[in-house]
Amino acid sequence: MPVTTKAGAPWVVKDGLATLGHEATALLHTLDAVFASWGVQEGAGTMDFPPLLAAADLSRLDYFRNFPHLVSVVGRLDSGRWAGYAEQAEVTTVRAGDLADTGHVLPSAACYGAYLHVAGDELTAPLRVTTVATCHRAEQEYHGLRRLGAFRMREVICIGGAEDVRGHLAAFRQRIHDFAGRLGLGLTRERASDPFFRRHDARQLFQALEPVKEEFSYGDGTAVASTNYHLNFFGERCGITYAGRPAFTGCAAFGLERWVHALVDLHAGDPGRAREAVEEAAAAMDAPGTAAADGRERA
Amino acid sequence: MPVTTKAGAPWVVKDGLATLGHEATALLHTLDAVFASWGVQEGAGTMDFPPLLAAADLSRLDYFRNFPHLVSVVGRLDSGRWAGYAEQAEVTTVRAGDLADTGHVLPSAACYGAYLHVAGDELTAPLRVTTVATCHRAEQEYHGLRRLGAFRMREVICIGGAEDVRGHLAAFRQRIHDFAGRLGLGLTRERASDPFFRRHDARQLFQALEPVKEEFSYGDGTAVASTNYHLNFFGERCGITYAGRPAFTGCAAFGLERWVHALVDLHAGDPGRAREAVEEAAAAMDAPGTAAADGRERA
Repeated sequence: MPVTTKAGAPWVVKDGLATLGHEATALLHTLDAVFASWGVQEGAGTMDFPPLLAAADLSRLDYFRNFPHLVSVVGRLDSGRWAGYAEQAEVTTVRAGDLADTGHVLPSAACYGAYLHVAGDELTAPLRVTTVATCHRAEQEYHGLRRLGAFRMREVICIGGAEDVRGHLAAFRQRIHDFAGRLGLGLTRERASDPFFRRHDARQLFQALEPVKEEFSYGDGTAVASTNYHLNFFGERCGITYAGRPAFTGCAAFGLERWVHALVDLHAGDPGRAREAVEEAAAAMDAPGTAAADGRERA
Repeated sequence: MPVTTKAGAPWVVKDGLATLGHEATALLHTLDAVFASWGVQEGAGTMDFPPLLAAADLSRLDYFRNFPHLVSVVGRLDSGRWAGYAEQAEVTTVRAGDLADTGHVLPSAACYGAYLHVAGDELTAPLRVTTVATCHRAEQEYHGLRRLGAFRMREVICIGGAEDVRGHLAAFRQRIHDFAGRLGLGLTRERASDPFFRRHDARQLFQALEPVKEEFSYGDGTAVASTNYHLNFFGERCGITYAGRPAFTGCAAFGLERWVHALVDLHAGDPGRAREAVEEAAAAMDAPGTAAADGRERA
């Protein structure tokens, strides 16, 4: 079994991009399966959304207004430049002017695909969906698995009435709390501000009254999970209604490489031992009589 | 459980990009787990490689020479243009001239990451790795799940001596043959030419003597799997040696959305029934006494 061959480390990171060896890959996928199973237990279907989004769709969501610095655009070479590239002995940089104009962008979060997929729908029951996506963020600096330019995010999304969404997020806060407790992973829970609402928006005021984003962070400050309450922002922008009014939405989000970072740190660098701990904690949470198994503790 | 909400179909495809509902997602991940398990049974470790590749690395592999038309480039907005995009009411197209020059490209196959990761290594034993990646191909036309602009590919790669690689590929041809037979999925096996070797290369001649690529296709012509023998091309270009000489490489590749297409077609549009069939066929292959379980049938 190859670990990561270079230096025998469980992973290597270069330029904000990670290569995971066998044990770290297995740990990441075990974590993902646990979080996905929580979604299914809470009534979510698993879905896969496109790995490229339309710029026009993201524009509707104020994406270019709020995150122009994060945008990762995908383009193809202009056909008039194919021969020139084919003839170059070494291509180290692709010049922007050699690309065709494009309408495609890589996602920076997993849940956009869900809101865009149900755009225009009139829901009569709350919809819960779980999905995992490779997310891309063009940052100024990267830091190991803690801050990558490309990483996997598992989300569990609820689209419905305000109370449905609040209950969904409360259930996930409880699950994250229980899971971290069983793992011996001390996570601090903090209110954060949601960058969706940071500009010229009445919702900015609302953040002071009710938390829209809560982050769960490992001891070194790495945020590994969050719950996010978007009010009816996506409902309005995507024309999704629930019971005749713009739907409310919220999601629980898990940064998978960050969980790998935190758990391997906790287990003295041993991803195999970390995976055993995850399997034990998940099994204990699924045992009859526990809060999560009974679906209690909705706030 | 949401299926795909639009029209209740198990998936929808738009502009070469797929959204999979719950049952199709489960089928795809079940198939992926089966193919990955074959890799592990053949001695492979599972690894994850970066979802972006360096243009300079791909250039070393003649990628721009052979596939300039397929290249998907990833760039960020030039910082001088952020304000302009933030102010636009609607962004439908990103102009190429608004991007910064870039050195990143999306992969069109899963195995590049493996060769690049072990570049410069001196192997003393054959290395087998399995990985799954989202692959991007800029095509002129797309066709349902059969030809997508972005799709998942599971690969099982062998890097070692010529005989190791030939045995690896023969083992996977046998597994694909057995699996298709148990599924009642009539696959035709055909020799194909490998586009790596299509230009000005002595290896082009070699293709006439020994097959370098064999494709397994469903009745409607959809190639769902292939075995690929690269001779020592990647060994030479990446400086990977095995027993002191440029390593030989080969891979078995599985187009996951194409398997979903073929199996759901076979099972009258029912992805749930297709998944049961996959689970039964995989379990039967793992039973003691079968060719695959015993690791026989190496050519």
